[in-house]
Amino acid sequence: MKTVNIGLLGLGNIGTGTYKTLEMNKKLIEKDSNIRLNITKILERDQETDRGIDVKPDQFTTDPKEIFQDKEISIVIELLGGMEFSTQLMLDAMNHGKHVVTANKAAVAANYHLLTETARKNNVEFLFEASVGGGIPILNAISTVLRGNEFEEILGILNGTTNYIMTQMTEYGLAYEDVLKTAQEKGFAEPDPTADVEGIDVANKLSILMALAFDEYIAPEEIPTQGITQVNSLDIQKAKEKNCKIKLIAQATRKNGSLTYSVKPMELPEDHPLSSVSNEFNAVFVRGNAVDELMFYGKGAGPLPTGSAVLGDVLEIAKRA
Amino acid sequence: MKTVNIGLLGLGNIGTGTYKTLEMNKKLIEKDSNIRLNITKILERDQETDRGIDVKPDQFTTDPKEIFQDKEISIVIELLGGMEFSTQLMLDAMNHGKHVVTANKAAVAANYHLLTETARKNNVEFLFEASVGGGIPILNAISTVLRGNEFEEILGILNGTTNYIMTQMTEYGLAYEDVLKTAQEKGFAEPDPTADVEGIDVANKLSILMALAFDEYIAPEEIPTQGITQVNSLDIQKAKEKNCKIKLIAQATRKNGSLTYSVKPMELPEDHPLSSVSNEFNAVFVRGNAVDELMFYGKGAGPLPTGSAVLGDVLEIAKRA
Repeated sequence: MKTVNIGLLGLGNIGTGTYKTLEMNKKLIEKDSNIRLNITKILERDQETDRGIDVKPDQFTTDPKEIFQDKEISIVIELLGGMEFSTQLMLDAMNHGKHVVTANKAAVAANYHLLTETARKNNVEFLFEASVGGGIPILNAISTVLRGNEFEEILGILNGTTNYIMTQMTEYGLAYEDVLKTAQEKGFAEPDPTADVEGIDVANKLSILMALAFDEYIAPEEIPTQGITQVNSLDIQKAKEKNCKIKLIAQATRKNGSLTYSVKPMELPEDHPLSSVSNEFNAVFVRGNAVDELMFYGKGAGPLPTGSAVLGDVLEIAKRA
Repeated sequence: MKTVNIGLLGLGNIGTGTYKTLEMNKKLIEKDSNIRLNITKILERDQETDRGIDVKPDQFTTDPKEIFQDKEISIVIELLGGMEFSTQLMLDAMNHGKHVVTANKAAVAANYHLLTETARKNNVEFLFEASVGGGIPILNAISTVLRGNEFEEILGILNGTTNYIMTQMTEYGLAYEDVLKTAQEKGFAEPDPTADVEGIDVANKLSILMALAFDEYIAPEEIPTQGITQVNSLDIQKAKEKNCKIKLIAQATRKNGSLTYSVKPMELPEDHPLSSVSNEFNAVFVRGNAVDELMFYGKGAGPLPTGSAVLGDVLEIAKRA
């Protein structure tokens, strides 16, 4: 049995979900892949909260060097969120020869070249499946088994909060403000929903998708981005009359070598595969010149689905390491 | 640039599609992966037909030994179809140290243990993504990046011919016999449609899916299998009244360690993700204990989508070889 030790940065919502996913399926993974995955150290200040997981006090540290200088640790999982600090920690980890896995779409999208180049220089792997589409294994698919295709188009519903709002507005004729308020009460939307409803979160994810599918990095702020705050009941009604639904869509199309892209509310015909993607679900539609249309559908967020994606990356690295 | 030479067994419909897919995207793959894939030898009796591809006469052979004994060839793609002969050739290829890729669901499902054991003994890879769901990369996903999950349920629409028939019967109120006749005229259904309409093809695919997802091999003939020949307009009408659609569904569920499975027409609620999968499309719905619901949707057949899946397997092997 191969043993792979892991350092985890951050034991918040997603960190705890990843830890739980591993606890839950550790035995199965060992039987299946003959790999024992141990999260041996965790960078986290809050060492008191009961998270419903079995963490021993000596697993905790508040000093990232304790993880990076630990020769027994080969993979670092970054789940702190944020931007500057988490990016710096990922770079430090790579410079210490650690493979890095993250769910941090904002950091990956903003620092794509720096992070991937630093990984390459240090000959370590850098995977970020959980940064786009939560549990949906889309990044792995477009980076590996679909590489026999030239990609022509990507369309995505990549934000659960806005898709929930659009679905509720469409199905029950509710007003934007009312649905947002309910979503906030239920915890589906942040108290400050700007990054979601203005499409910023989706632009980060589209930037990452384009970098992998088209080998072309477009910074999120260069993507023409329009959120859902301007969509009203009348727009939705008009769309319905045309047998269409309005969805917040990330789109990238390559035609004759040139790439066009946007994030904006779009009218989709009701028989389009993305039209039936409701509420908090995400989906990515891909067209390749050989495979034609493909769609991947699943939970775009949540501790366990995200944990599944993080663990998938860890397993891929552990198999090769 | 790493060069990987390939022997191709069979240049029929799917063989030609695979060859075309590689021709079309060879340059892109080289740029992307730094791997040059060459189909250097092709086992095929019919060397005259114009298939619209650039094959030189000296690429053809009618003697499989010419491929198996060629030290320059590391991967053999089996696209002959059939059962005994193609299985024997795959075993021979493995015993000569070649990695094997196939799209042959009947042969894989019938001889799963023999083929995977022979691959293991010879320390070669054996991949068969194209055998289930055509271009949909489902086998790769459940064998690799989703391994951090315990799978609880798989539901699949795995046969384009029967899904086309059920869709046409549902949408236009047509009778089974009439739709089948049209499908045969259009080339969507075989002159002898038994393997499709009786669910035999789907049972083969479910057997393969269960072996990978649940690590449990059930021979196709042990799967309770019912096709669509008994479904009539009245059944479809009754389902509609319950807001359901009838689909031919492959189902496998594991609960408390025990696996149940079947292939049969089922009523699915109209808001189930599989309900909107129409005509010749396939889809696989998977529930894992971490990732929750996932669905993969795409073209379940056709020369280029199948070629995409074959090439995906070849690329995975070429990267590691």
